[in-house]
This record gives sequence, structure tokens and C-alpha cells, in this order.
Amino acid sequence: MEIIGEKINGTRSSVKKAIADRDEAFIQNLACKQAEAGSTWLDINAGTHPSREKEDLVWLVKTVQSAVDIPLCLDSTNPDAIAAAIKTVNKTPMINSISGEDDRLKGILPLVAEHGCRVIALAMGGRRMPETCEERIEAVHKVMDAARNAGVPDRHIYVDPLVMTISTNIQNGILFFDTLRAIHAAYPEVHLTAGLSNISFGLPARSYINRAFLTLAVKEGLDCAILDPLDQELKAALLSAELLLGRDLHCLHYTRAYRAGIFTHV
Amino acid sequence: MEIIGEKINGTRSSVKKAIADRDEAFIQNLACKQAEAGSTWLDINAGTHPSREKEDLVWLVKTVQSAVDIPLCLDSTNPDAIAAAIKTVNKTPMINSISGEDDRLKGILPLVAEHGCRVIALAMGGRRMPETCEERIEAVHKVMDAARNAGVPDRHIYVDPLVMTISTNIQNGILFFDTLRAIHAAYPEVHLTAGLSNISFGLPARSYINRAFLTLAVKEGLDCAILDPLDQELKAALLSAELLLGRDLHCLHYTRAYRAGIFTHV
Repeated sequence: MEIIGEKINGTRSSVKKAIADRDEAFIQNLACKQAEAGSTWLDINAGTHPSREKEDLVWLVKTVQSAVDIPLCLDSTNPDAIAAAIKTVNKTPMINSISGEDDRLKGILPLVAEHGCRVIALAMGGRRMPETCEERIEAVHKVMDAARNAGVPDRHIYVDPLVMTISTNIQNGILFFDTLRAIHAAYPEVHLTAGLSNISFGLPARSYINRAFLTLAVKEGLDCAILDPLDQELKAALLSAELLLGRDLHCLHYTRAYRAGIFTHV
Repeated sequence: MEIIGEKINGTRSSVKKAIADRDEAFIQNLACKQAEAGSTWLDINAGTHPSREKEDLVWLVKTVQSAVDIPLCLDSTNPDAIAAAIKTVNKTPMINSISGEDDRLKGILPLVAEHGCRVIALAMGGRRMPETCEERIEAVHKVMDAARNAGVPDRHIYVDPLVMTISTNIQNGILFFDTLRAIHAAYPEVHLTAGLSNISFGLPARSYINRAFLTLAVKEGLDCAILDPLDQELKAALLSAELLLGRDLHCLHYTRAYRAGIFTHV
């Protein structure tokens, strides 16, 4: 399971302030903690106004790279900001994200192809969130066609089926699992990723729902997740799911995590 | 989801002592707590020597029934003890358990049929734990044939696919889920139950594994579980799974449990 650490995101007020203040220590601390907690990638989202985003994203990349050496996930819909950040990275990054929207395909896909990046592809064709599994698959077909035509190998693509909150429609969990399975069946080599926490928006005790959601999603083929790697309960749920699904030979990851003190609420 | 409260079991040392001392208050306290925590059934296992079991089981039934009015799950392989306990119960009980073993079928199945009991049927044909999914299904066929011939309706049968510990074979989780699916496909009206905690035997931080196991098993069709209903973390995992699988209309069970203070480690 690949983990994209989500915490360096300018839409969070503390990160927003650190970006505005050019507070390197704050950002580097977030980067180190997430790297130590086992992140495969670190998401880097400036979250600032388009006029500032390019400069802020490049500053974030440089700041983070001077502290950790894991690859970055450049999180922006702005091709100029992405292009500038790609020139700054030490390791081939992941790009977050493209979708079936033509301007995002045209703006970002060539950069992905040129630099051999991984890329997150949202299962949506337009700006509206698709309601059904079929609409999502249709959007995925469009993105996959464009990506293949651009020469991006399937294994570099991380499809995000899109998580919608369960409190507005009790079927949204099943919709997500069904979409995961359908994408995996159609494109067995693409990765499946998601930002999980949307599922519990509007409900109390959200972390329980998020943990169970991750557990169930792993069973349906999710092999990458955008999450808070410092959330030890979530990590314990993930390790347990992988153990139970036969993916932790000799229970090594689980027992090592135990010895490292991950399991706090036994 | 039906819950069989597991705590009144004479193989636990405190319960063993209470049975020996005829400590009604201790047993009734366990019964009340499990009933209040939402148990559908209370398992009653004397766990004593065959020469004592009948008398002890009847005492337990009377003691529990004077405190709570939920139905009981009479847990014994001894037909004499079961027959005596059936005469004592106020509500039609569940019997735990039969298997494909001829003496258990012959000794207990007639009682199940005569009294209209629910019954737990273990997916094993002999005294040896079956290794494969196929062996389990074969055993289930044998029990189901016998039960149908005795006039027991499928909906009264709770098949237990048998949980084997994951630390001895990393495939044992998948084996369990595969068996759940296969039984459900062959007998869509039977219930599926299990004692969950065997899965984590021999590993540290067992409760995390048990929670994830319950979460995944609910998705594969488990609709009854023998567990500790006082374990709030396990209950939170169950409520989350049911929510995410679309079985909690308007999120009512989840939000009610939140208001009742179930979620302690948010």
C-alpha cells in the first residue's frame, strides 16, 4: 500500500500561514514527521491564489526536499505551477491530478508523459461530480484513452474513483466499492487511490468510519491512499486489513508496527 | 446484525467460579450488561464436566432468565444437557452447535427440529478442522441435508465457517471470506455466524485485528457474530461497517450510538 501524506496542504490554516510567512521549519517538520511515519509520497499543495501558486509551490518543493528525500506528489490544477515545480524536484514526482476535463488533460498530461511522472486521474469527465458508477467508468475510459495516447503506461496512473459523503446518500460507500472493482476489472495495471475522509463528512466520530472505510477499500483493490500518516489508529486499521487479506507474510509488518508502538488503544 | 453475547462461558475462570459457588449476582450482572449492550442472544456455556453439565446449564438458564428476557444460545455438545435446558427456557433458544459429525447430528438435531430452535452449524464433518474451503462446503452440505430432512428451515440455521488463526497461515483470513461467500451462494437463506477472535490468536494487539476482521466479514455476508458486546471499539467497527455498506438508513444507528457514548477513542 502506497501512502500519500496529506498534511502539507495550503487549504489548512496552519500551512497557509507557514507558506505566507515562508516558515521553513514548520513545513520541514510536517515533511519529516510524515516521512518517518512511512509515507511513500508527500502531497504538496500550495492552495494559494493562481497568481501566487507557482512561486509558492516551488518554494514548498525546495523547502520539503531540503528536509526529506521521498518523492513528492505535486497537487495543483495549474499547468504553469506544475511545470515549474517539476523543474525543481529531485525525484520523479506524482501529479495530482488530471480528470476527463479537456483543459486539464491538455494542460497537464503532456507534462506527465514528458517527465515520466505518476499521475492521479479523477473519475470525472466534467466539473460536476458523477452520480453513478457508469458515469465514473465512462470518465475513466476518457482519461485512460488520452493517457495511453500520450504514451503514459497504465502502471503510472492512479485512478481516484471519488469518494462522496455517506451522510447525503447511504449508498455512497457501495458506489465507491463497486467503482473500485469495475476500474480494476477494466484496467488491472492501474493503481487505485482515494482521499478517504470525505466519506464521513457531516457525521460524528468520523475517524471510526474512515478506518472501516479504508479496511473495506483495501479489500476491493485500493492500493494507495491520501491520508494523514500520523493517524496511528488509521494505520493500525490498514495493517490489520493487509494482514487479514494475506498480504503481510509472516505477519512481519504487523508485529514490527506493534514493537514500534503503533497500537495505542489495544 | 445479530449479536450473541459470549461472556457467560464456564471456560472463563471467573464464570467457572461463579458456577461452582452458585453466585447468581455475578452471572446476572454479566447477563444484564450484555443485554443492555444490545445482544440479540446470550450464549450460555457451563463448560463443566459432563457429569455436572446438565445441572449447571439448567442453573445458568434459570439464573439468567430471572434477570433478562432476551433469548438464550445453549452452548453444549451434550444432548442431555441441551434437552434439559430446553425444558427450562422461556423463549425458543438457539443451540450451539451441531456439525457434520454423526453423533452430534443424531443427538441434537431432533431437539432443534422438535422445539423449532435456531441452531449453529459448524462447517466441519469430523473432529478434525477442515483445511480447505471445499472441505468446509462439503461438511455444510452434509449438515444442511440432515437439517432439511429433519424439517429445520434454512432460515433457522446459522452456519459457522470456522475461523482459524492468521498467525499460523497468512491465507486463513481469505479462506474464511471465501467460505462465507460460498456458503451464502449455496444457501442464501441461512445465516452466517462466527466466533471472531480466533483469527488473532498468538499475535499482539489482537483487538485491532478482530475489528478489521469483523468489518471485512460483514461485507462478505456475516450477519451474526459471537463476541463481547461490551467491547465498544468492536461495536464501533461493526456500526461503521454497516453504515458504509448501506445498511444504516439515515445513519440512525450510528448517530444514536454516538449520542449513547459508544465512540470512546475518536
